[in-house]
Formats: sequence, C-alpha cells, structure tokens
Amino acid sequence: MLAPGATIGILGGGQLARMLALAGARLGLKAHVFSPVADDPAFDVCAARTQADFDDEAALAEFAEAVDVVTYEFENVPARTAHVLEAHRPVRPNPRALALTQDRLIEKQFVQSLGIATADFAAVDNAGALARAVAQLGRNSILKTRRLGYDGKGQTQLRDGGDLAVAFRTLGGAPCILESVVPFEKEVSVVAARGLHGEFRAYDVSENLHEQHILAKTIAPAEIADETATQAIDIARRLAEAADYVGVIAVEMFVVRDGDRETLIVNEIAPRVHNSGHWTLDGALTSQFEQHMRAVAGWPLGAARRHGRRVEMRNLIGDDVDAWPELAREDGACLHLYGKKETRAGRKMGHVTRVFSD
Amino acid sequence: MLAPGATIGILGGGQLARMLALAGARLGLKAHVFSPVADDPAFDVCAARTQADFDDEAALAEFAEAVDVVTYEFENVPARTAHVLEAHRPVRPNPRALALTQDRLIEKQFVQSLGIATADFAAVDNAGALARAVAQLGRNSILKTRRLGYDGKGQTQLRDGGDLAVAFRTLGGAPCILESVVPFEKEVSVVAARGLHGEFRAYDVSENLHEQHILAKTIAPAEIADETATQAIDIARRLAEAADYVGVIAVEMFVVRDGDRETLIVNEIAPRVHNSGHWTLDGALTSQFEQHMRAVAGWPLGAARRHGRRVEMRNLIGDDVDAWPELAREDGACLHLYGKKETRAGRKMGHVTRVFSD
Repeated sequence: MLAPGATIGILGGGQLARMLALAGARLGLKAHVFSPVADDPAFDVCAARTQADFDDEAALAEFAEAVDVVTYEFENVPARTAHVLEAHRPVRPNPRALALTQDRLIEKQFVQSLGIATADFAAVDNAGALARAVAQLGRNSILKTRRLGYDGKGQTQLRDGGDLAVAFRTLGGAPCILESVVPFEKEVSVVAARGLHGEFRAYDVSENLHEQHILAKTIAPAEIADETATQAIDIARRLAEAADYVGVIAVEMFVVRDGDRETLIVNEIAPRVHNSGHWTLDGALTSQFEQHMRAVAGWPLGAARRHGRRVEMRNLIGDDVDAWPELAREDGACLHLYGKKETRAGRKMGHVTRVFSD
Repeated sequence: MLAPGATIGILGGGQLARMLALAGARLGLKAHVFSPVADDPAFDVCAARTQADFDDEAALAEFAEAVDVVTYEFENVPARTAHVLEAHRPVRPNPRALALTQDRLIEKQFVQSLGIATADFAAVDNAGALARAVAQLGRNSILKTRRLGYDGKGQTQLRDGGDLAVAFRTLGGAPCILESVVPFEKEVSVVAARGLHGEFRAYDVSENLHEQHILAKTIAPAEIADETATQAIDIARRLAEAADYVGVIAVEMFVVRDGDRETLIVNEIAPRVHNSGHWTLDGALTSQFEQHMRAVAGWPLGAARRHGRRVEMRNLIGDDVDAWPELAREDGACLHLYGKKETRAGRKMGHVTRVFSD
C-alpha cells in the first residue's frame, strides 16, 4: 500500500492520463507522466514529466526509478517497453494483461478459453486465408488488423462481391482477424476494478451509442434485464481474475436478443480506464480514475455506487467542443474539457455529464 | 470570457491553490502558481510554476505577462504585490476587496457602513488606547492584531485582572482592534460566488465547529431557521456587491439567540475559497473551487445545489492524517489529501467528506 506522497508513473499523456493524474492528486498521490508528445494534455497537471519515445530505454529506466509504480492509459504499450519498466518497478495492470488485449486474436482466444462467448472469428494472415475465412464465416463479416486498431481505425466491413485481396491490402497486409457481424440489440460495457489483493468492484453496466465508430454517448444504468447485468459483471470479474488483473478494466459486450432472452457476447477488453466510464466522475461516489489510482497504489477500492436515477455522458468530438459556452451555462451540466490545443475532426475534446434524479 | 486553454495565475501554493488548479483543469483552464515556497502542494498539479517572493517585482511582472488573469488563495497579498500585478492583468477579486479584508478595523467599518451587525469594537494603537477601549467594551473582549492573524494566531483574550500593557505587548505592539466577545449559539458561514457581470450564487449556509481556533468540522446545511439562512445569504450578497467582488467569498457569522429569534453578527470576511466550503467538492453540483475559477475567468457560475440531505466535512489536522488507511477503506468517505511533505501539529493535511442521503 503506497503512502500518500508516492508517485504513480503513467505511460501516455492524453485525456485519460490527465484525468488519472487529477484523481490521484485528490488522494495526495503524485503523477509522473511519460509521453513522446510535447503538448500532451496530461503534462499540464502532473508533478513530473518525461518527454521521450517509448523505445528510449534509458529514459524508461530513469522514469521507472523515479516512480513507485507504473501504469498506462492505453493498451498499445510496446511489449519491450513494459519489459524494461518491469525490471525496475511493478507495472499494473501486469504486462500479460497488455499482451492479451493488444492482439484481437489472442484476446478472443483468451475470452473463449474461459467459456465466454465472442463473435465467430478466424485468423487471416494473407489473402488466401481471407478467402478460406469467408467460406467459413460468410460475407457479413468485418476484417480487422490484429493490432493497433481503435475508434473504427484498422478495420473494414466486407461487401458482397467486393475483392477480398483488395480488402486485405486496404489494411496494409498486416495480420488480421475476420469477425462475424453480431446482430446486436445494444452495446454495453462493464467498467470495474480489481484491487491488489483480488477485491473486485463494478460500476453499473452502461449502454453505449457510437457514431462513425466513435463513442458518442453513454447511459448508466443500461436498460437491460437485471439478470443480464449480473451476468455482464460476472464476465468482467472472470476475465479480470483470469488475467490476475490490477486496476480498472473495461469490457465491451453486445446484447443479442433471442425472444425474451438477452445473451452477451464479449466484443473487446480495454486494460485501462475507459471512455464509457467517464460518467463516474460526476455520477458515482468514486470515479473510475480514482478507482484505478487506488488499485495500482494497492489501496482499498472506493464505493462504486451511482448518484441519481440515471446518468448520461456525451462526448464532445471535434467541433462539438465549440458549444462550451452554452454547456458552461446549462444548469446541472458537468463540463469537462481536456485542454487539447488543436480541435480536429474525430478528436475527443471533452465530455459533458448530466445526472438525473427523477 | 476567457476561452479554454487560458491560464489563471494563482498567488500562493497551499491546498487552496492546489484545489483551484485541479478544478480549473477540469474546465481546460491552465494554472500558473506563484509561491515563495519550493515544495508547496499546488506546484504538483499546475501547468506552470514561479517560485519567487511576493516582493520580487520582476518575477511578478513576468508572471502577470504569462497569465490571462490573476487570483489568489489568501488575503494577505501585500498591497504593493497586487498593485504591480494589476498594471499587467486583471486581478480578481479586485485589490480593494483585499484591502477591505486585510485589516480587521477597516473590515468591521465596511460591514457596519452597510448596516450589517458586527461585534462591538474599538481601535487600539497603544497600551493607553487599550485601557480606554476596555473601559468602553469591558474585559470580556478579545484583542486582535489588525493584520495577518489566522487560525487563532495574533489574538489574545483579556483576563480579569490581567495586565493590559502585557496583553498589548504579547501581540508585538502591532496596531490592534479590541472586540467584544459575542455570546453566540452557533458559528455559520456563507460561501458564495459573484460573477464578472454581477451574477450571485450561494451554497447552503454551513455550520462550523472549531477546536483550538482551527476549523474542525463543517455541516451543511446549518440547523438554523430558514429566515436566518435567507438573511445570512443576503448579507453575503450585499457585502459582495458593495466590494464589486468577483470570485468566491466566504462570510463567517455568529448566530445569537434572543428568545425565539436568531440574529446574525458578521465575524470575518475571507476574499477567497474557504475551508468551510470544502464540502462542496463532493457535496454540491459545482465545487467552490470550480465556481471561483469560473468567476475569475468570466464564465457563467455553476449550479450550487447540494447533494444529499446533509453533508459533513472534517478537517484532518496534524496527526489526524495518519488515519488515511481507515478513511480510504470507509464506504462512502470522500478522502482528500493535500500532498504536504511534512505533518505538523495544527497543520491542515487533508479533509474527508461524507454525504448522507437519509
């Protein structure tokens, strides 16, 4: 259990790192941010900064020596980076959890190995393998790179009659996975935390609405059957336990309706705080950011109870952020702006949360 | 109205500056902290730092040029410092409000000039004046330095038969004020904000319990008559308007019972965020820190509504902070630690808030 005054090293300097640093500061924990990008928003709120590349081993070693524990805001931390850091300090969540979630194929195999449902899938290493995978799964499928995709990047939906070799080349010829399209009714996520000694606490399951592959809105709690919510949280718990996970984890799932029955299919695991948990900053007793800092510092987890009857979080993407003066004026709207210098299309600039009491 | 990305200069680097910087960061506002003390807690969470003395005019000018507006976390900003800064950038609250509250005599005269009650008082510039003041107000009085007192420092209660010349010398022979002891039932405070265009929003009146002259506990709302609460907020509004105030102001008052009637006597004005408003971090829609940053940035004020039925804030003073592991474990306790390196008796190390729903 790290004492107040300890330093949490955070890899990455985006809005997630920024909100982690702010949450840690409430608890008297210092943040040391490591990022290659000079004007990253987390640099404005931390006690110490390292601007260096993730393959700069000398900088990594110096950073690790300066902190008490290392965590990260994104799953694409290179394996070598995690390895170098681990030689000096605990890395939480552990690098095995990173490895499990960095590769869509390994992730799906891990989920299935626990008896948890995923979309049907097949590995695709070349155009020939793609033809065989389509023969097995059909054309109603999505081809995704195994690594480094996010917000709809690194994927393409197959079209009837489309040239499979072209589709494969579109993604740069990288190792891919073909996934069946799931005819889902809702997309939900479980944001939960696992402590250093196995304690587990989940927030209410939330419902997520995407626009152009980017999360637009989260509603908590999701309108799903109580039994489905219980199952969703149980899935997150089993995944976290199997990965010996420490920190906040997010599990995105599809809800598929079969008559009166709802079934759950795991879509993706994020080994970090997650956009669909931003509502907890204003809508829960302990935010996901504080929860993550508590977990990686070896502290007991905080209460995850929701405020109000319903909480809504909307992302401010690109020009959406121009509405900040109206949002600042709106009674009861909790406005969060990430301090990014430049507004770009598709860039997450902030979010706004509304807590409804009745 | 300063746009997100603007920089708020904060004089002072203690916990109030730290919580102001954290609240500004949520809104995309940068904090530049100016403090003479190298390891001040606000330095750990700000975008820019100046470590220099308050009489270093070159450093002040450079600081002012680097920020968009200047504010402060404490009322004892030297007049000359405020004057130098004002030549470069707006200073909010304005230096006149500082001057009104830095001197207990001027403060009481200001309050009375608006027809608002204070304790009886008399100016005391020397031992002879003290004897005359005692003849007027009686021995049940407190002698206070006009300037620079806080947390019970710079004051002494007169004793029957005590030597008045000794009492005066105890306070270093500085210009003083003698104040009648008020036979109060409760101590309450109004924490409120006034915006750049005169908008005014008050939090619920809170009740304050002191131990050894230091705030120990705040309860919101105070258990006083609704009419008394309305009057208390009206007093704060009139004081803020008369001072053309911008930012968060705190007005400490005594509640004196006269049969069924409660009357209010203003004790002290703080031209800044205030310890008795810390409960708003977890117990109100907009915290006093965000409210202050909004006001000084020229933004609309946020909603000041309370969460729950009752909110309690306890200070962690000196060794109290050693209880942090238990507080971190307590369900629903919102723990705040200020990141101070050294625990000292009487030093405010953190606070804990509990929101009670029923």
